[in-house]
Amino acid sequence: MSEVKVGIIMGSQSDWPTMKEAATILDELGVAYETRIVSAHRTPDRLWDYGKTAVDRGLHVIIAGAGGAAHLPGMMASKTRVPVIGVPVQTRALSGLDSLYSILQMPKGFPVATMAIGSAGAANAGLMAAGILAVSDAALAERLEAWRAALSASIPEVPSDD
Amino acid sequence: MSEVKVGIIMGSQSDWPTMKEAATILDELGVAYETRIVSAHRTPDRLWDYGKTAVDRGLHVIIAGAGGAAHLPGMMASKTRVPVIGVPVQTRALSGLDSLYSILQMPKGFPVATMAIGSAGAANAGLMAAGILAVSDAALAERLEAWRAALSASIPEVPSDD
Amino acid sequence: MSEVKVGIIMGSQSDWPTMKEAATILDELGVAYETRIVSAHRTPDRLWDYGKTAVDRGLHVIIAGAGGAAHLPGMMASKTRVPVIGVPVQTRALSGLDSLYSILQMPKGFPVATMAIGSAGAANAGLMAAGILAVSDAALAERLEAWRAALSASIPEVPSDD
Amino acid sequence: MSEVKVGIIMGSQSDWPTMKEAATILDELGVAYETRIVSAHRTPDRLWDYGKTAVDRGLHVIIAGAGGAAHLPGMMASKTRVPVIGVPVQTRALSGLDSLYSILQMPKGFPVATMAIGSAGAANAGLMAAGILAVSDAALAERLEAWRAALSASIPEVPSDD
Amino acid sequence: MSEVKVGIIMGSQSDWPTMKEAATILDELGVAYETRIVSAHRTPDRLWDYGKTAVDRGLHVIIAGAGGAAHLPGMMASKTRVPVIGVPVQTRALSGLDSLYSILQMPKGFPVATMAIGSAGAANAGLMAAGILAVSDAALAERLEAWRAALSASIPEVPSDD
Amino acid sequence: MSEVKVGIIMGSQSDWPTMKEAATILDELGVAYETRIVSAHRTPDRLWDYGKTAVDRGLHVIIAGAGGAAHLPGMMASKTRVPVIGVPVQTRALSGLDSLYSILQMPKGFPVATMAIGSAGAANAGLMAAGILAVSDAALAERLEAWRAALSASIPEVPSDD
Amino acid sequence: MSEVKVGIIMGSQSDWPTMKEAATILDELGVAYETRIVSAHRTPDRLWDYGKTAVDRGLHVIIAGAGGAAHLPGMMASKTRVPVIGVPVQTRALSGLDSLYSILQMPKGFPVATMAIGSAGAANAGLMAAGILAVSDAALAERLEAWRAALSASIPEVPSDD
Amino acid sequence: MSEVKVGIIMGSQSDWPTMKEAATILDELGVAYETRIVSAHRTPDRLWDYGKTAVDRGLHVIIAGAGGAAHLPGMMASKTRVPVIGVPVQTRALSGLDSLYSILQMPKGFPVATMAIGSAGAANAGLMAAGILAVSDAALAERLEAWRAALSASIPEVPSDD
Repeated sequence: MSEVKVGIIMGSQSDWPTMKEAATILDELGVAYETRIVSAHRTPDRLWDYGKTAVDRGLHVIIAGAGGAAHLPGMMASKTRVPVIGVPVQTRALSGLDSLYSILQMPKGFPVATMAIGSAGAANAGLMAAGILAVSDAALAERLEAWRAALSASIPEVPSDD
Repeated sequence: MSEVKVGIIMGSQSDWPTMKEAATILDELGVAYETRIVSAHRTPDRLWDYGKTAVDRGLHVIIAGAGGAAHLPGMMASKTRVPVIGVPVQTRALSGLDSLYSILQMPKGFPVATMAIGSAGAANAGLMAAGILAVSDAALAERLEAWRAALSASIPEVPSDD
Repeated sequence: MSEVKVGIIMGSQSDWPTMKEAATILDELGVAYETRIVSAHRTPDRLWDYGKTAVDRGLHVIIAGAGGAAHLPGMMASKTRVPVIGVPVQTRALSGLDSLYSILQMPKGFPVATMAIGSAGAANAGLMAAGILAVSDAALAERLEAWRAALSASIPEVPSDD
Repeated sequence: MSEVKVGIIMGSQSDWPTMKEAATILDELGVAYETRIVSAHRTPDRLWDYGKTAVDRGLHVIIAGAGGAAHLPGMMASKTRVPVIGVPVQTRALSGLDSLYSILQMPKGFPVATMAIGSAGAANAGLMAAGILAVSDAALAERLEAWRAALSASIPEVPSDD
Repeated sequence: MSEVKVGIIMGSQSDWPTMKEAATILDELGVAYETRIVSAHRTPDRLWDYGKTAVDRGLHVIIAGAGGAAHLPGMMASKTRVPVIGVPVQTRALSGLDSLYSILQMPKGFPVATMAIGSAGAANAGLMAAGILAVSDAALAERLEAWRAALSASIPEVPSDD
Repeated sequence: MSEVKVGIIMGSQSDWPTMKEAATILDELGVAYETRIVSAHRTPDRLWDYGKTAVDRGLHVIIAGAGGAAHLPGMMASKTRVPVIGVPVQTRALSGLDSLYSILQMPKGFPVATMAIGSAGAANAGLMAAGILAVSDAALAERLEAWRAALSASIPEVPSDD
Repeated sequence: MSEVKVGIIMGSQSDWPTMKEAATILDELGVAYETRIVSAHRTPDRLWDYGKTAVDRGLHVIIAGAGGAAHLPGMMASKTRVPVIGVPVQTRALSGLDSLYSILQMPKGFPVATMAIGSAGAANAGLMAAGILAVSDAALAERLEAWRAALSASIPEVPSDD
Repeated sequence: MSEVKVGIIMGSQSDWPTMKEAATILDELGVAYETRIVSAHRTPDRLWDYGKTAVDRGLHVIIAGAGGAAHLPGMMASKTRVPVIGVPVQTRALSGLDSLYSILQMPKGFPVATMAIGSAGAANAGLMAAGILAVSDAALAERLEAWRAALSASIPEVPSDD
C-alpha cells in the first residue's frame, strides 16, 4: 500500500463525525492517510511532537479540524512548513464563526488554508490535500480529474419533486 | 522593590500601545511586573518555556494580549496553571471580534479571563491582576480599594460643555 | 469542612443548568462554595448586599452567570473588589452574544473575567476560581495540576467510530 | 419656569456630545429637564439614589445614555417605575452593538425604551420623552405636532447638488 | 369597564403568539386594550387610518409588533404623535436581527421605543405602556409598583435542581 | 426627448451623493428619469401619492435609496406594482446592515430588488432599471449590451503600480 | 400555452424546496417558466450556455437561487443582459448570510436583484419576475394587481387564538 | 530564470495594493510568478481560458484575490484542478466579510484555500503557494525554512516605546 502523506488531525473525538468526510474523500481518491487526536490545549506536547516530526515522517499535507478557540491548525502551521489545511468545526453558540476566525486570521508568516465551516469544508480539505499532492503525482492528478468529472456528470438537468 | 508576580506578554511589538495600559495600572497600584513579546506562532518555543517556568519563577498572574488569530492567551493557559488574563487587541478588518473569539471560546479545562477589546480591556487586565493578588495581599487590597474610591470620587455630577 | 471562599451567583433559576457546571468542577477540586440567585433587576438590593458584604464574609472569588442584558457580573464588580468571573448564558434570539457583550465590555475600572458562552464557560469559571485561590493555596494548586494532568491523559490518540 | 419632569442621565462625560441632542430637542419643545452624570459602575450609589427618589422628585421620564457594557438604563429601570428611555452610545470596537444589546435585551419586568444608536437616537429620546408627557399635557401635544409638521415641511421635493 | 387607551397591533396573525404576552400583562394590570392586525405592506391604508385616528379615538400608547422588514412600528410613528412601542418578532433566518434593525434605527423625528426581541420584549411592551399611562394615573402607578414588588418577591434565594 | 419611465427617489437629501450614481448610469444609457426626495417618515403622504400615481404617470421602474430603518423602498413596493429597486445607503454605526435588512427582508407579496450597499449598488440600480426596460425596448437593449462590452474591454490584462 | 419567458435556475436539487415557491407564484399568475439545475461550480459550462443563449431563446427574466458561496446568480448576470433575480437559500452554519453577501455584493456593472433569504424570497422572486414582465404585458399587470388585492383582502382585522 | 509555476490573479486593478504582498513574498523566496487581472464578471471568458489552460501552461498554484461578491477564486477552482488560494480583499461597507464568505463557503467538490482578510492574507497566500511547491522542491523547502527562521529570529524579547 502507498506511503502515508496526509495527516488528518483534530482537537477532539467530537470533531471526528465532521472530519471523517475528509477521510472518505481520500479513500475515494486512493490517498493514504493517518488520523490522530491532537488537542492544542489538552495535549500541547503531542502537537509539538507532531509538528516537529512531520517533515521527517514524510507528511506532505496536514488537515486539521477544530472548533471554538480552535488553536490546533494555526499552532501546527507554526511548528512545520508542511501545508496545513484548516477545517472550522461548527459550534453551538457561535455556529462555527469562532472556529473560523481563530483558524483564518493568522498573522503574516503562518498561513492556514481555511475551508468552509463543517462537513462540506472537511470534504473539501480532502480534495485540497489531493490537489496539492497531485502537483507532483500525475496518476493522482488523473484520478482527481476523474472525480471532478464524475461529480459534474451526476447533476440532473431539471429539479425533481421526489 | 517587590518581587515580580505579574507577567505582561503580547504577541507582537504592535500590541504594546494597547498593553501598556495594563502596565500603567500596575505602576499606579505598586505591583511589580515584567513585559515580554511572546509570539505564539513566530516564537512558539519561547511560549513553551515561559509557560513551563511560570510557577517556578514565582509568577502569580499572566496578562496576555494578542490580535487576530490571537492564540497566545489560550496556549499559555494550556501550559501553566497560573491564571491567564486575555486582552483582545483591536484589528483592522474585524475590529477585534476575531481576537475576542479566539481568546474567549476556550474549551473546558483551560480558562482565559477575557477582558474588553482594546485599551479599556488592557487597563482592566491590570486591575484584575491586582484583584487576584489582593486575595492574599492585604496591603494591595487596600491600595486597590483606594484606587477604586478615587475613580468614583472623580466623576462630576453634571456634564459640562468644555 | 473548609470555609466558603467562592460564591456562585446567577440571575435566575433558569441559569442553574448552565452554572452547575461550575459547581461540579469546584466539587471535583474540593473547593467549598455557596450558590445564590441574585437578579440584578428583580432583586437589586440583594445584589447590593451581596457585593458590600463579600469581603467581610470571606469570599475570595465570585462567579456570576447571566443571560441577555446580563448586568449581574458587571454590577457585582462595581460593588466589590473581590475578583468577579462572568459566564455569558446562551440565549434564544441572539445565542448569547447579548450576554457576552454586556459582561465583557466593562469600562476601565471594573473588570469582569469573562468566560466562553454556555456550559464550557461555566466549567472554566470553576477552574479559573480554583486557579485564583491556588495562588495562595499550595494544596489546591496540586489538586488543580492533577486535574489538568488527568484531563490530558484522558485524550485518546486516534479517533474512533463508536 | 416649568417644573423639571425629565432627567437626562449618562454614564460619563464622554457621552454628553451624543446626549445633548436630547437636551436640544427638549429645549425646542419647551420641556424642562435636568442633566446628570450617573455611572452605573463608578457611582452605583448615585444610581440607587437617583432611582429611588425619582418618583418623589416629580420625574416623569428618564433618558439614560451609555456605551459599552451600558448598564445604566437597565439598572435605572430596575430601581424606579418611571419610564426609562435608553440611548446606545456608539463605541470604538463594536460600533455601539455592545451598548445596544446591553440596553435592549432586558428581561421581562424591566423594559427600557431603546432608541437608535448614537445622535439620532438621542434626539429621538427627547421626542419620545415629549410624546410621553404629551399624553397628559395638551399644550405640549400641540407643540409636538407643530414640531413634526415643521420637520415634514422642511423636506425639499428634489435633491440638489449643492 | 375602563376606556381603551392602548392599541396592540401586529403585522400578521403569526405575530400573535408573541404579542399576546403584551396583552397578558395589560390584563394583569387592569389596563384596557384593543388588538388589531395592521400589515404595513398588505394593508397600508389600514395603517394610515389607524395612525390618523389614533389621537381622536383616545389611544394613549400603541404597541406594534412585526418581523422581518418590520415597517409597521416606524410607519405608525410617522403617522401619529402617540408614543409607539416596537416589538421585534424573532425570525427564521436572521433570528430577529432584521426585525430589530428595521424597528430601532429610526431617523431623527420619529422614535420607536424598541423592546427586546421576542416574547420577553412583548411582555415588556405591556409594562412600558402601563408605565407611560401611570405618569398620569396614580391608581395604575400603584398597581404597577405592586406588580414589580411581587415579581421581586418571587425570586428564591438559592437555585434548585427540580 | 424620451418620456420619463424611471423614478429615482430617496429618503433624504443626504442620500443624493450615493443615488446620483444611478442617475449617471441612466444618463450614459440615454434613459430619462426624474429625481425626488420622498421620506417615508417625514413625508408619508408624498410616498402615498407617488405610489398611487406611478402607473398612471407612466413609470415603469422605481429606484429607491434609503439608510437606517430605510422603509421607503418597501413601502413603495406596497403601494404600486411597478418594480421597485432598493439601494441600501451606508450608515455610520451599522455600516448599512440596518438599511440592507430593512430593504431586503420583505414579506411574501411585496418584493424589493435589493442592490449592494452604497455607491456600487446605486450604479447597479441604474443598470437593473435599464435591463428591465430593455425587455421591451430593443434599442436600449443594444445600448446596454454596448455599455457592458465597453466595461469588459476596459479591463487591463496586467495590474500596474501607477 | 404561452411562451416561456422566465427561467428558474438553481445550484442544486437541494434548493428546489425553496425555489418551488417561485414556480407556484408564476403558476398562480399564469406565467410560463422552465426549471433547470445549473451549478456554477459543478456545471460551469451549462451556466455559460444558459447565459449566452438566454436572449435568443426569448427569456425575459432569470430567477436564480443558490446557497453558500452562491456564485450562480452573479455569474449569470455576467453572461447575459437579461435581468437576474437572486434568491439566497438558507444555509446551516451561517443561516444564509453567506448566500446573501455572495449574491448581493456585486460590483458595478452586473446587478442581481436580490430577494429575502429563503422561501419568502423565492415567492417574491416570482412576483418580481411578473412585475418586470407586466411592464409590457397589460393582461399580466391586471392579474398581478388582482393577486395583490386578494392578498390584502385576506388579512383579518383582529388576531385569533386558533 | 525559473519557470512560472504560480499565477497571481485578481478581480480588479484596485486589488493590486493588497495582492502585491503575495508577489513580494514570492520574490523573497525566489519563486517565479505571473500577475493578471481576471474579472469574474467583467471578463468571464478570460477566467474560462485561464482556468482551462492552467495545467497545460505549467501552473502549479493559483493565488486569486477579490473583494465583495468575490467570485473569482471559486470560479477558478471550478475550472481547474490546480490548487486555488483565495484572498478576501477588505471592502468598505462590510469590511471584507462579504469577500470572505463568498470565497470560503464553497460547496463540496471545489475547495478554495482561504487566507485572512487583507494584506496579511495576501502575504500568507505567497507563503502557502511556496509551501505547496516545496512539497516537491527541496531547495525551495530550505529557503522557506530559512525565511521562517529569520522571521522568528527577528522578534525582540521585550516591547519598546519607540
